[in-house]
Amino acid sequence: MKVRKRIVPVVLCIASLALPAFAADPLPSWNDGPARKAITEFVQATTDKSNPKFVPPEARIATFDQDGTLWAEQPMYFQLFFALDRVKALAPQHPEWKEKEPFASLLKGDMKGALAGGERAMLEIIMATHAGMTTEEFAQTAKEWIETARHPKTGRLYTEMVYQPMLELLAYLRANGFKTFIVSGGGIEFMRPWTEKVYGIPPEQVIGSSIKTKFELRDGKPVLVRLPEINFIDEKEGKPIGIHQHIGRRPIAAFGNSDGDLQMLQWTTAGSGARFALLVHHTDAEREWAYDRRSSIGRLDKALDEAQAKGWTVVDMKNDWKTIFPFEKR
Amino acid sequence: MKVRKRIVPVVLCIASLALPAFAADPLPSWNDGPARKAITEFVQATTDKSNPKFVPPEARIATFDQDGTLWAEQPMYFQLFFALDRVKALAPQHPEWKEKEPFASLLKGDMKGALAGGERAMLEIIMATHAGMTTEEFAQTAKEWIETARHPKTGRLYTEMVYQPMLELLAYLRANGFKTFIVSGGGIEFMRPWTEKVYGIPPEQVIGSSIKTKFELRDGKPVLVRLPEINFIDEKEGKPIGIHQHIGRRPIAAFGNSDGDLQMLQWTTAGSGARFALLVHHTDAEREWAYDRRSSIGRLDKALDEAQAKGWTVVDMKNDWKTIFPFEKR
Repeated sequence: MKVRKRIVPVVLCIASLALPAFAADPLPSWNDGPARKAITEFVQATTDKSNPKFVPPEARIATFDQDGTLWAEQPMYFQLFFALDRVKALAPQHPEWKEKEPFASLLKGDMKGALAGGERAMLEIIMATHAGMTTEEFAQTAKEWIETARHPKTGRLYTEMVYQPMLELLAYLRANGFKTFIVSGGGIEFMRPWTEKVYGIPPEQVIGSSIKTKFELRDGKPVLVRLPEINFIDEKEGKPIGIHQHIGRRPIAAFGNSDGDLQMLQWTTAGSGARFALLVHHTDAEREWAYDRRSSIGRLDKALDEAQAKGWTVVDMKNDWKTIFPFEKR
Repeated sequence: MKVRKRIVPVVLCIASLALPAFAADPLPSWNDGPARKAITEFVQATTDKSNPKFVPPEARIATFDQDGTLWAEQPMYFQLFFALDRVKALAPQHPEWKEKEPFASLLKGDMKGALAGGERAMLEIIMATHAGMTTEEFAQTAKEWIETARHPKTGRLYTEMVYQPMLELLAYLRANGFKTFIVSGGGIEFMRPWTEKVYGIPPEQVIGSSIKTKFELRDGKPVLVRLPEINFIDEKEGKPIGIHQHIGRRPIAAFGNSDGDLQMLQWTTAGSGARFALLVHHTDAEREWAYDRRSSIGRLDKALDEAQAKGWTVVDMKNDWKTIFPFEKR
């Protein structure tokens, strides 16, 4: 009888640990429809040992774009609002900005004028606001901003403008043994101070664009100083490269919303065994924004064609999502 | 009584899960001594909620150098043996190497002549053997080599020349909620195909030096092609930078053996709260090799001074380690 006594608690233990999987609907904000069905079928197949599509837990890597996939990106990328706020905050230390574009227009509130210089103007704004401090100082600044700044249209904190169905999807994948990563064109150090709290994704699972840093001893204390020099652009072709650098294995599932995610989805689905690719299509002008092929931010054109050709899952936000933002829930 | 029935299995469950921590000595290859004591005291303090030095699990990041810290590095870095074997394998496709240094000397078996060109010669060998193929092809080549090539002195597989006490230390830390990373000057893609099997460290927790890659569609199939261009050198100042890029938070414990690890140890110990730094000192000419301040490979000079000044733990391999290599065990 001794053996029995020891077996019982172990069985109960396994049963109690497994319980959440059989509990309430893990995706309550997803309407019944082809997107939800494709997700749950993929997860069930890859986690069922008796299924030929089974994938061992260590290979269950899922990568998520951020802007437009996990949180909103209109009327412009949220990190750009951060940069603009930093320009205002730093302006007293830079009297020369009053005469110098893109800063002059920006400080007058003329966004169009500020961004008229295109990518070069954007880069100047980023470098002026994202470099020159230590990594710890920058992390602190990003953290303070994200905790207080508010979206110009909704008046909400930016971290309230995450997509409730995607939060559920992240948790659902993790509960099924997946390791979830962010793979964003946004700045890696802008995201890392708060992704764990908002998405449950720790800093070491965040991949993004970066500038170079330099190791220095200041009064014997080591610091990393952020330099005004691009290190890596984690966008388009950069996404598979960033994934390979950081993760070192190919994801089996990838989630994006724009042409900037196309190569990540191609790279992910080109592996052998079960694969999953999903695009969030912004179709809800009322609850969020509606844009795709002709948008300058988050353009979804080539990737939409390829999704249709290859049978990737496309989320129709208007019809597939019961709730978009967590604050809509009652 | 219903409540009771449900509590009992949960308690038993927790107890059974916690059992391994109280089981047999987790560090059987470590002699009783100051190094072993420092390690166990640090782990006990940082994992005990009632201790002021307690560190929450998500912050328990431990980083390990590889060459000379997890496996041997004499008479030269093992990856260099790999490169030399590749030169021989590729020589038929490169008739020009017969006349061209450093390849000519190398193919004649004249190692000294081949490496006379210093870092530049080394770089030429690495680029000629590590670039030009897809990442998948390279991973396969590295994997095949590591499974078959043997050390010139011991005749053992290189993966048999890992340090048994460090394998125990890795497992001990992980059993206590630490996340273990490799942070090596060696090539990231050379290590990743086999670190999980050998050290229990998955590819996404391996940081190393790298060359650039390029995304390409070949007949519609995406590949990453390895370019003969340095991307990142993960050595000295590069180690804190690599750690910051990949992990995004500061380790609380770091393990190295040479001056190439000094900045990693400085960076790790400069954080607040409990910190741990350890150097493996190669003092056993009989069972392994003895070298430090004047060795060209794995020089330990400045870091040894700093360890003494700052009270970092220094492992005396001869006296602290009961067993060095797993194959010594009976």
